[in-house]
Amino acid sequence: MNKFRHDFNSIAQCGILDSGGLTRLALSPPDQEARTYLIKIMQEEGLRVHIDAAGNIHGVLEGRKAELAAVTIGSHLDSVPQGGHYDGVIGVLAGIEVVRRLNAAGIRPLRSLRIINFCAEESSRFGVATLGSKAVTGKINTEDLKQIADSEGTSFYTALKQSGCNIDALAQEVLGKDDIHAFLELHIEQGQVLEQENIDIGLVTAIAAPSRFDVILTGRSDHSGNTPMHIRRDALAGAAEVVLTVEEIARNSGASSVGTVGVLEVEPGAMNVVPGRVHLQIDLRDTNMEAKTRAGTELQRRIEFIAQKRNLGVRIKTLCNDKPIILNAALRKRIHQLASGMGITTMEMPSGAGHDAMHFAAIAPTALLFIPSIEGISHNIKEQSSFAAIAKGVELLYACVQDLTAA
Amino acid sequence: MNKFRHDFNSIAQCGILDSGGLTRLALSPPDQEARTYLIKIMQEEGLRVHIDAAGNIHGVLEGRKAELAAVTIGSHLDSVPQGGHYDGVIGVLAGIEVVRRLNAAGIRPLRSLRIINFCAEESSRFGVATLGSKAVTGKINTEDLKQIADSEGTSFYTALKQSGCNIDALAQEVLGKDDIHAFLELHIEQGQVLEQENIDIGLVTAIAAPSRFDVILTGRSDHSGNTPMHIRRDALAGAAEVVLTVEEIARNSGASSVGTVGVLEVEPGAMNVVPGRVHLQIDLRDTNMEAKTRAGTELQRRIEFIAQKRNLGVRIKTLCNDKPIILNAALRKRIHQLASGMGITTMEMPSGAGHDAMHFAAIAPTALLFIPSIEGISHNIKEQSSFAAIAKGVELLYACVQDLTAA
Repeated sequence: MNKFRHDFNSIAQCGILDSGGLTRLALSPPDQEARTYLIKIMQEEGLRVHIDAAGNIHGVLEGRKAELAAVTIGSHLDSVPQGGHYDGVIGVLAGIEVVRRLNAAGIRPLRSLRIINFCAEESSRFGVATLGSKAVTGKINTEDLKQIADSEGTSFYTALKQSGCNIDALAQEVLGKDDIHAFLELHIEQGQVLEQENIDIGLVTAIAAPSRFDVILTGRSDHSGNTPMHIRRDALAGAAEVVLTVEEIARNSGASSVGTVGVLEVEPGAMNVVPGRVHLQIDLRDTNMEAKTRAGTELQRRIEFIAQKRNLGVRIKTLCNDKPIILNAALRKRIHQLASGMGITTMEMPSGAGHDAMHFAAIAPTALLFIPSIEGISHNIKEQSSFAAIAKGVELLYACVQDLTAA
Repeated sequence: MNKFRHDFNSIAQCGILDSGGLTRLALSPPDQEARTYLIKIMQEEGLRVHIDAAGNIHGVLEGRKAELAAVTIGSHLDSVPQGGHYDGVIGVLAGIEVVRRLNAAGIRPLRSLRIINFCAEESSRFGVATLGSKAVTGKINTEDLKQIADSEGTSFYTALKQSGCNIDALAQEVLGKDDIHAFLELHIEQGQVLEQENIDIGLVTAIAAPSRFDVILTGRSDHSGNTPMHIRRDALAGAAEVVLTVEEIARNSGASSVGTVGVLEVEPGAMNVVPGRVHLQIDLRDTNMEAKTRAGTELQRRIEFIAQKRNLGVRIKTLCNDKPIILNAALRKRIHQLASGMGITTMEMPSGAGHDAMHFAAIAPTALLFIPSIEGISHNIKEQSSFAAIAKGVELLYACVQDLTAA
């Protein structure tokens, strides 16, 4: 892992902040720096490098039967603002490390091995997540990419053009069943479950999808001193009931269900004024689509009831109701077997967060492997995973690749 | 009421906004314009005008026995930003209208009648409310006024100096028992009680005082997808319980008790992040000091309990715990009698908001009379009271003055 560590530290410099974290927005100068570094180390390991129409960097180790679909490993180098060093980077460098070990052992696998750095996985710059993997799996097209723009109005399409990509050729570069034999992604957990359960690797069963609601409760702004309790129409008191209802529904809806009110804005927001308007944004997630739909319906019904009871106006807008992705059970079972033989402990778990891997589940057997995050901290300059934990992940990934490329 | 209406419309022009409301911050050019207009109409009615050290404008109609303590009427012409036309203005102009009627009737009362426009009643410019009435009743001194400054750093002291007041003479101008026989203030209710009860005039029993608390709840910011419900430390869920607890305590604490969470700020405030920190500001008011203290203690105990139960950090800071002001029952009873004889309906009620009158309660029998506010809207460009309602208030005030100045 010495070269892995060296590469990790080198990439950590791209966009590094005084605070120790980094800001490496998709296709920004620090991201371009990291991408250039990646291309260099891919070439050093003898990979054939190609940047596709959507800015994804592919490095291919050609197998003995190059006509067979390739085993593919992918993750991303871009970050959120003031993010950490591990998110995405670990998965890309783990792929390079696997190639390095194959090379060191003089192994040329039967099937090709393709390592991909997906462009713009984080939604921070363009407002939409996993853009590169969506594009290369045909979920969005060139026209879509013209509509998706950053806060300065630069579209993803234009940003790709400016970085030299032939974005108009996207349709010809979409990957399909003939290209991918299996897809693997190693990623930090971004949660605390593995650490609390003291398990080496999480094997993701399904990737939860969010239902998101934007809610506005409208009451009446009144003088806090001159308005008796019984004639108030306090939008914040109603919103407080909504917050606790979201929590209750998520708690009662099953183990993989979570519900969060992350945004709550009060107007006018003065100590001596009864709040007249509250804006909430609610995120419900589940790996079970039916359970999530049920929870969302129940939540909306109860918000309407709270509003009615308190004589508040209410507007509920469903922002999305995405479908969870179920990952391949046979591949997961095989990885568990391999891990067991190596003394690596695993547990099955859902992923609450989306990842590039989710776009490959319909194309090929796909596995998402989690490495423990220290204290679960992520999207934060304090994000960390131990190198011992990462090394176990790389070890297991290497075993998977040997297994999957052999036949 | 024709001259009253004319004066009202003239003063409404001082600081008027395109929206129809007005911004007339204390001692700002629009306030100075309104003050100049007031001096003019005071002089027209034969009042002896004097601007005191604290910028209060006094107009005195000398009684037949000028050595007796004067009946005093006061309110204010300054406004909040984007305020309405009625708050304060009605009370000052009602005083002028009473003088006008005495003059028209050829009545020269036994006791003098003093009309005061208090300077800087609203806290909007200098951050402290009822500055002029506090100063002229000796509750703050010249040195205090040097410490109280607006957002540009101009102290109330300097602003008074600049407008020509001899602020250093304040101590010699403080009003006492020998100066004031009774104090009367007519003001808009700024609430909805009179309108809902269909009553002409509210007779204030006591002016509630606030207890204010600044609360910070600290949990942990976590990924909304990857953090199971049972290991969350969601500061907003805790804050929601606090909001509902404030409401519950105020509802159960007695009719004159109100409780409001007007400020609630969530960090980091992103849809996909469990809130790690919430800042709340709580305003409890009551006209009963004991009930308020009990409610405050109970509230703090329950906030601590919520924090403990949810494993949140908590910091509660008491910003103030002011004492309610009880107004003179005998004077209120006399006003009720006078009103009854005139066919004017009254009800006793607390005032949740502070007013200049409260500083006179310890010096002389003091009465605060409320006129209904349409829909209770106040501190708002939509603030309104009907002229029919105002006319009844002026009628009653005139009767009170005749009664009180006669002996």
